[in-house]
Amino acid sequence: MSHHKHHDPTTAQNNADSVDWGLIKLSENRAFNGWHQRFSHRSQCNRSEMCFSVFLPPKVEDNHQVPVVYWLSGLTCTDENFMQKAGAFRIAADLGLAIVVPDTSPRGESVADDPSYDLGQGAGFYVNAIQQPWAEHYQMYDYVTQELPQIIEANFPVTSRRSIAGHSMGGHGALVIGLRNAHRYRSISALSPICNPMECHWGQKAFSTYLGPLKASWFEYDASELLKQHGTALPILIDQGEQDEFLNDQLRPNTLLDALPVENDRLTLTLHPFYDHSYYFVASFIEQHLRFHARFLL
Amino acid sequence: MSHHKHHDPTTAQNNADSVDWGLIKLSENRAFNGWHQRFSHRSQCNRSEMCFSVFLPPKVEDNHQVPVVYWLSGLTCTDENFMQKAGAFRIAADLGLAIVVPDTSPRGESVADDPSYDLGQGAGFYVNAIQQPWAEHYQMYDYVTQELPQIIEANFPVTSRRSIAGHSMGGHGALVIGLRNAHRYRSISALSPICNPMECHWGQKAFSTYLGPLKASWFEYDASELLKQHGTALPILIDQGEQDEFLNDQLRPNTLLDALPVENDRLTLTLHPFYDHSYYFVASFIEQHLRFHARFLL
Repeated sequence: MSHHKHHDPTTAQNNADSVDWGLIKLSENRAFNGWHQRFSHRSQCNRSEMCFSVFLPPKVEDNHQVPVVYWLSGLTCTDENFMQKAGAFRIAADLGLAIVVPDTSPRGESVADDPSYDLGQGAGFYVNAIQQPWAEHYQMYDYVTQELPQIIEANFPVTSRRSIAGHSMGGHGALVIGLRNAHRYRSISALSPICNPMECHWGQKAFSTYLGPLKASWFEYDASELLKQHGTALPILIDQGEQDEFLNDQLRPNTLLDALPVENDRLTLTLHPFYDHSYYFVASFIEQHLRFHARFLL
Repeated sequence: MSHHKHHDPTTAQNNADSVDWGLIKLSENRAFNGWHQRFSHRSQCNRSEMCFSVFLPPKVEDNHQVPVVYWLSGLTCTDENFMQKAGAFRIAADLGLAIVVPDTSPRGESVADDPSYDLGQGAGFYVNAIQQPWAEHYQMYDYVTQELPQIIEANFPVTSRRSIAGHSMGGHGALVIGLRNAHRYRSISALSPICNPMECHWGQKAFSTYLGPLKASWFEYDASELLKQHGTALPILIDQGEQDEFLNDQLRPNTLLDALPVENDRLTLTLHPFYDHSYYFVASFIEQHLRFHARFLL
C-alpha cells in the first residue's frame, strides 16, 4: 500500500479566493482512495444553513479538475443517504467523476415545515416556492441550478462540466432541471422518477402548497409537460423497477414516453422486473448511470 | 432486460423440510439480480427472537447451491448496516457467494440491557455469557457457530462451505470464531478488528460483565491469545485504517503480529493511510475480502 500525499483541495482553493464562502467541513472520510466530505454553509437563496456532501475521486490529488454529477435525493432523504447506500464511489473513483449531493430542502427551526413526510423539510421538490410561508426559504430550484454549482466550482477542483441525476422526487428534480437548463448540463438520468407530478398525489400536494392553485405555474416543474412542449436537447437515461410500490400511482414513466416525439433517440427508459423503490435498486444500477454520464462529461 | 423467473428458494426448501424453523420473512428486495432478504425467528440458544439478513446471488435461481460468507457487525449495528452500506452485493453476485448477517445481540424487552453503547443489546461480543442476567440470552458464540448455520443450510440453497468476516467487534468475532472452528470455516477476514480484547477497554468491560472476573474464561475469546497458543490453520486477511480513531486504544492489530510464529504465511495484515473506522472504509475494501474468501470457497 503506497502512502498518498494528503492534499486538501478545499482549503487550497479557499485560500486562493477572495470570497468567503463560509463553508464548514463537518466530516471527511477516505473512500476508494478519494474523499467523501460533508459541508454546511449559509445558503443565500434559501436564507438558511444548508448541508451538502461531496465525493472527490483520487484523480484530483494529481492536480486534475474533474466533472461533476449532481445527485438529487428523494423524499425524507438528506445529503447522506446516497453517499452511504448507493455504492457509487468505486465507479466514480474509477471514472474520475466528482459527485455532489445537496439536501432535499432547507432545514432548521426557523424554516416552515409540515408533519407529513411528503411536504416541508425533506420534501422541497426542487421548486422555487411562491406561496407563503414556504417562499421565504424553499428556493431549491435556484439553489441546485445556480448557487450550489457556483460554490462547488469556486471551492473544489472541478470543471464546469455537469450532469444531473436523482431518485424518485430527486429523479423529478433531475429531469426538470436538466430539461430547462440544457446549456448548463451534459446529460440527465433518473431512477424511479416522479414523471408527471401535476397528475399524481405527491406532486399535486407539493405544487398546490409551494406554488398555489394556479396550474400555469406548475407546468415548468413537470417533466412530461416540459418534454411535450420542448423535447429534449440532452440525452436522458431512466431506469424503473416493475415492483416499485409507487409505480402506477406516483411515478408513471409512461407519461414521459407519451410526451416524446415518435422518432425519439434521446430518452432510454428501461423497466426492470422484481426491483422495488429502495436504495437496493439504486445501488444495482448506479454504475450504468455513472458510465452513461461519463460518456458526455469526459 | 430479460424477465427472470421468480423462484423463491426459501419457500421451496421449507416445504421440503419436516422441521418448522419458524422463519418469518420481514422483507425482500431485488438487488444485482439476486435477492436481499430479512428474517426473524425464535433462537433456541439465545431464547429470544432474532433477526438476520441474507443476500442470495443470481446463481441460486439456476438451482445452484452457493457457499456462504458470514458477516459479523460492530457495536451498535443490527443485521441491516452491512447490507445497506458495504456495497458488497455486486461482487457477491458476480462471484456466486451468499452473505449472511446476524444481529449483534439478542434484543427485546425481556433481554438484559445496559444504557451504554458498548454493552448489552447491540454489543453481544460473540461470546456465550456465563454471568447473570446476561447468560439467560447472550449466547452469541453458539448462535453464530451452530444455530445460524444450521438454519441457513436447512432453509436456503447453500452448501456447507463457510467463511467468516467482520468489522470492529465483528472482526474480533470473526477471528475468534474462525480460529476456534477451523474445521467449520474455510477462511477468515476482518476489517478494523478488536485484536486483543483482554487488554482494551471495550473488551475488558464486555468480558468482565458477560464472563465475570476470572480471566481464565477470557482467553478463548481473545484472537491474539488464541493465535499465540494455537496458531492458525486457516488463512486470515486483515485490513486496518491508519486514521482509525480506535486504532491504538481498542483495536491494536500489532498484538496479532506479535502472537504469530516468526515464519508466518497465513495472516496478511495491511495498514491503509487516511482510512478511518467508518463503513466508507469497509466499502472500500469489501471487494478484496470477498475475492479472498472466494479463493477458498469456490
